[in-house]
Amino acid sequence: MQALRKVRPEPGAELAEVPVPKPGPGEILIEVAAASVCGTDVHIYEWDPWAAARIRTPMTFGHEVAGTVAAAGPEVHHIAPGAFVSAEGHVFCGFCPQCRRGRQHTCERLRILGVDFDGGFAQYVVLPERNAWEVDKRIAPEVASIHDPFGNAVHTCFIEGGAEDIVGSTVVVLGCGPIGLFAVGICRSAGARQVVAVEPNEFRQDLAKRMGADVVVDPSQRDSVEAVMEATDGHGAEVVLEMSGVPRVIDQGTRMLAGGGRMALLGLPTEPVSLELTDNVIFKEARIFGVTGREIFRTWETTSTLLATGMVDPSPVITHRFALSDYEQAFEAMASGRTGKVILTP
Amino acid sequence: MQALRKVRPEPGAELAEVPVPKPGPGEILIEVAAASVCGTDVHIYEWDPWAAARIRTPMTFGHEVAGTVAAAGPEVHHIAPGAFVSAEGHVFCGFCPQCRRGRQHTCERLRILGVDFDGGFAQYVVLPERNAWEVDKRIAPEVASIHDPFGNAVHTCFIEGGAEDIVGSTVVVLGCGPIGLFAVGICRSAGARQVVAVEPNEFRQDLAKRMGADVVVDPSQRDSVEAVMEATDGHGAEVVLEMSGVPRVIDQGTRMLAGGGRMALLGLPTEPVSLELTDNVIFKEARIFGVTGREIFRTWETTSTLLATGMVDPSPVITHRFALSDYEQAFEAMASGRTGKVILTP
Amino acid sequence: MQALRKVRPEPGAELAEVPVPKPGPGEILIEVAAASVCGTDVHIYEWDPWAAARIRTPMTFGHEVAGTVAAAGPEVHHIAPGAFVSAEGHVFCGFCPQCRRGRQHTCERLRILGVDFDGGFAQYVVLPERNAWEVDKRIAPEVASIHDPFGNAVHTCFIEGGAEDIVGSTVVVLGCGPIGLFAVGICRSAGARQVVAVEPNEFRQDLAKRMGADVVVDPSQRDSVEAVMEATDGHGAEVVLEMSGVPRVIDQGTRMLAGGGRMALLGLPTEPVSLELTDNVIFKEARIFGVTGREIFRTWETTSTLLATGMVDPSPVITHRFALSDYEQAFEAMASGRTGKVILTP
Amino acid sequence: MQALRKVRPEPGAELAEVPVPKPGPGEILIEVAAASVCGTDVHIYEWDPWAAARIRTPMTFGHEVAGTVAAAGPEVHHIAPGAFVSAEGHVFCGFCPQCRRGRQHTCERLRILGVDFDGGFAQYVVLPERNAWEVDKRIAPEVASIHDPFGNAVHTCFIEGGAEDIVGSTVVVLGCGPIGLFAVGICRSAGARQVVAVEPNEFRQDLAKRMGADVVVDPSQRDSVEAVMEATDGHGAEVVLEMSGVPRVIDQGTRMLAGGGRMALLGLPTEPVSLELTDNVIFKEARIFGVTGREIFRTWETTSTLLATGMVDPSPVITHRFALSDYEQAFEAMASGRTGKVILTP
Repeated sequence: MQALRKVRPEPGAELAEVPVPKPGPGEILIEVAAASVCGTDVHIYEWDPWAAARIRTPMTFGHEVAGTVAAAGPEVHHIAPGAFVSAEGHVFCGFCPQCRRGRQHTCERLRILGVDFDGGFAQYVVLPERNAWEVDKRIAPEVASIHDPFGNAVHTCFIEGGAEDIVGSTVVVLGCGPIGLFAVGICRSAGARQVVAVEPNEFRQDLAKRMGADVVVDPSQRDSVEAVMEATDGHGAEVVLEMSGVPRVIDQGTRMLAGGGRMALLGLPTEPVSLELTDNVIFKEARIFGVTGREIFRTWETTSTLLATGMVDPSPVITHRFALSDYEQAFEAMASGRTGKVILTP
Repeated sequence: MQALRKVRPEPGAELAEVPVPKPGPGEILIEVAAASVCGTDVHIYEWDPWAAARIRTPMTFGHEVAGTVAAAGPEVHHIAPGAFVSAEGHVFCGFCPQCRRGRQHTCERLRILGVDFDGGFAQYVVLPERNAWEVDKRIAPEVASIHDPFGNAVHTCFIEGGAEDIVGSTVVVLGCGPIGLFAVGICRSAGARQVVAVEPNEFRQDLAKRMGADVVVDPSQRDSVEAVMEATDGHGAEVVLEMSGVPRVIDQGTRMLAGGGRMALLGLPTEPVSLELTDNVIFKEARIFGVTGREIFRTWETTSTLLATGMVDPSPVITHRFALSDYEQAFEAMASGRTGKVILTP
Repeated sequence: MQALRKVRPEPGAELAEVPVPKPGPGEILIEVAAASVCGTDVHIYEWDPWAAARIRTPMTFGHEVAGTVAAAGPEVHHIAPGAFVSAEGHVFCGFCPQCRRGRQHTCERLRILGVDFDGGFAQYVVLPERNAWEVDKRIAPEVASIHDPFGNAVHTCFIEGGAEDIVGSTVVVLGCGPIGLFAVGICRSAGARQVVAVEPNEFRQDLAKRMGADVVVDPSQRDSVEAVMEATDGHGAEVVLEMSGVPRVIDQGTRMLAGGGRMALLGLPTEPVSLELTDNVIFKEARIFGVTGREIFRTWETTSTLLATGMVDPSPVITHRFALSDYEQAFEAMASGRTGKVILTP
Repeated sequence: MQALRKVRPEPGAELAEVPVPKPGPGEILIEVAAASVCGTDVHIYEWDPWAAARIRTPMTFGHEVAGTVAAAGPEVHHIAPGAFVSAEGHVFCGFCPQCRRGRQHTCERLRILGVDFDGGFAQYVVLPERNAWEVDKRIAPEVASIHDPFGNAVHTCFIEGGAEDIVGSTVVVLGCGPIGLFAVGICRSAGARQVVAVEPNEFRQDLAKRMGADVVVDPSQRDSVEAVMEATDGHGAEVVLEMSGVPRVIDQGTRMLAGGGRMALLGLPTEPVSLELTDNVIFKEARIFGVTGREIFRTWETTSTLLATGMVDPSPVITHRFALSDYEQAFEAMASGRTGKVILTP
């Protein structure tokens, strides 16, 4: 079969012919229908320091995958060949304290599809049965392949009782990459009073509007804290969703929070973040939540409902589609900044 | 001024000329712009056993009131004449254990406007300043007068983390009087997957559809438990909002709940309710919440947002308007069952 | 090996010689060190209508089991022979909506050890690896065998934010069988202001005192609602844990609740329960939670900590110990009502 | 009467003779029985930059006060002369969005006793009736005067469902001033598995042990992160309570958190805090809560129960007692670092 492989520890990738993998006990073989490209895949493709430290070549990458179950290994009892599934890429042990607390997505022995073992930029991929989610029949294959990042957005919005805080509130989304864009749509459908999107990239500002943002702030043009204060009569936003990972933006997030507000941190800063905590967090009794991955599978259920019922329409975010063999164009598009989600089809 | 008074302990009421009341310390005088009729007012008008036991005549009734502040007594510091306000009719002590836990609406010394002291079916009404809510300018006076029952619906939907359970879920509303109808609209705007309304009255079935119900069940035509099971592929509803107070309906509510589901009880049964708890509550780990009044003033803030922003449009529910002097027609309309909300204008 | 078997569909049981079972894929073989007797086992032994409808003979019963892993089948990766484990008897599918919401203990395809397949009143028992909990080394084997019922108590106390309600509160435990007795000790260690135990059986009243109950009420001598009102200066109890399953007692539980109070229902009534909901649940905004089993494995972690650190000493509750061959004496003791927990040793 | 006054904007204070104040509408006059000295009082006494910016002289300071109601102004309806009360020093408006959300302690127009108006280092003090808490009769006057800082500790421990996280968990208290010391005792009584106290001052290390700390770490002797990791078998602490306000210690707090852990920030850093968020907060899904003041009056109820029942014995923390006239010795003792709580008696 064809697979997009990181063959050597250097930038780039190669479309290689490799054997179709065999599912072991408890595993299934999926014939990939669509695979979407994540920022993580760009790090791997470009071979940045994180990738150089984490990835062992040769390896097939890609973890946002959906397709049809083609075969099942022994000890597979619940998902049968022919089922159409989307992949939860976090493979968890089920036995560490995190797993036993129902926090499988922060498993102490987490292995990640397309990062720690062969992924889904290929015609076939093998996955543990319990990591497969049967996709609602109303959902198209390419939308099935974005359950993973859409789920990141769902989890960020709703972590620790977030729905409670969103209803009737001002929600600010800091950074409108695909996950931020999904979050805009999710908060709209979950009863936010207004959604303020902060994003410097014009292409994505436009997508934010199409996903339902009431106010779009270009932080290169005006101070985002001021803009939020103006939009909230000086009270600040009840909810801030941080999707940028930029230290200065995280600091601004704390400054635009209302008293008792919540801030969810999904973006990953690569250096220490300096925060003025006394006025912006402590006296406000702000609540700050780290967010990673998505709940297995509580998040998936909400994701499925939001997408299957049309409560959120993700189609504006899916801006590019390529054949797997045109992967170079796909990664170029990703690098241009003028994309939402990019889909590869084997 | 003119006031609709319960003069004697018997059915009916009288439009009487009485002096304009004087606000005492901490109190304001409101010139009533609109007052809506509650089921409780019908009990008082018809002088049912509850009313006979609770109401001391002579008294002006009516508690769903909005109007302009006309004067302020001494020790009023925050709300000035000219402000347009809606009345929170639950007057609380602020010092009992319930109040000190932030549960003023279940105050151990609760006194209720239009029930325990002179109410708002009149040209003027006196209220403690702290029971007045300044109405958002985008909201019309008649909508301001229904903040109280709309707030009951908001509180029922969102009590104890309810927003969390509504997003992506099937919500069943049992009984579509005005509060049930408002609840249909609120759950729609808060991200329910589908709202199922159960209501035998055709006039109200139609209103339920107009408020956004996805499925309307006439329980005189088909079993509501079966209908909900069918609408949920046999899993049951994650959320049931009980607005009828009918014992048999409450029992059905428990039977249509999904595992881990929540049921909020707002309707007031007048006799004991027989429930099969083992299968319908215990093995399901269902959660049942009693609900009364509305949170002072957390609920009002959400109410104000939902109405001011147009997230919920209550106008289909406001079906009748009368001059205060036509009160007899108003109470006849209420008795007909072919009403949503009935508004009186002094 | 020796196993206590239900051979025919009739009262009683038989100690039989049967082959040592073989663990299949993902299963382990446990050499039983201690097995404690549950009320469910008494139902099976006495062959009551529930047992007659549910149990298929021949079958070995017993589900509260602890012992040493003697062998592991294929595809066992986390628990090795030699480990000392306690059994979570609820075998779940992992794929139904309940499981995927993290509610494995209400799995739609639940199979129960010693009820639906061969249990632990035997020298050896087979269990899925993922149903085994490695026991803290500070815990004695007989205490390891009561993790299951102790976990029921932990789950009842702490369900849906229960710890929040217990700190500084009056907790009433209705019914002091072993689970109720454990609950007394747990609430004591979790910061209850006072624990009131209601129990008609004198032997168990004494155990309740030894587990830390501050007030013990004999409901055959005085009205339990009155007693709780007296102990709370008329405000009622913030927390009621219902462990009896007796309809009249459940009704009393609602009457003794404070405004905003919580009631957890673990006892299983065998007939409908008539409740006066308006005053006792709705106007109070009481919260009622059905409880079953225990969270897998959140509850186990708390259970382990409470027992391993000595925060709760369960030893007063373990009143009888028998060799497996003396099972008739064990079931006689259970029937006498003068027991706490009864332990069998193979 | 005698009052300890800040007469001029400079270090020090003066015992002055001033008229007994008169309670206005809604206010009461309290004859002070005991007043305890807070770190804030030391800032005022020493006239640090914060004090110089905030305090307007002349003014009587002191806000941790308890005493007997000596007189009531007009419109006082609930608290009568003769009652023994403790002061909630945060005077709130009741009408701003924060107050109306039940967050009076973060009122947008907060005025603080002894900071913004005359306080309680005096024979008499005037307070709004609704800021008075009637003290349980089992509590001694000097303990009544520490309800305020004890309440800070209660609020920090239990904010946002904290009780849930404490039961069965490792709790680390960073900084053992009086509030940290109270927190040690509170977590002990609320079911913590182990409490680790981190404190460089030997005098306070000893107090931490007496309040029930299981492990006391001297951070000048060993790395506190390492110490916590060792005490938790490398998993980290589920709960960290930050009471120091030292930037480096706050950073360490995030590093010692377990996956899913919670950190409450009460200490006030005076400069920006640099945090490594990616590994220590985001991938862990840590939760960080700003904490200020205490909930009015939910926190007071818990405080009262914990102290009145003896669940927490604060007496080891009350290390010094002085007559008001010996205030110079009191502030010297405070400056020495060899104090717990210092009580002044007029």
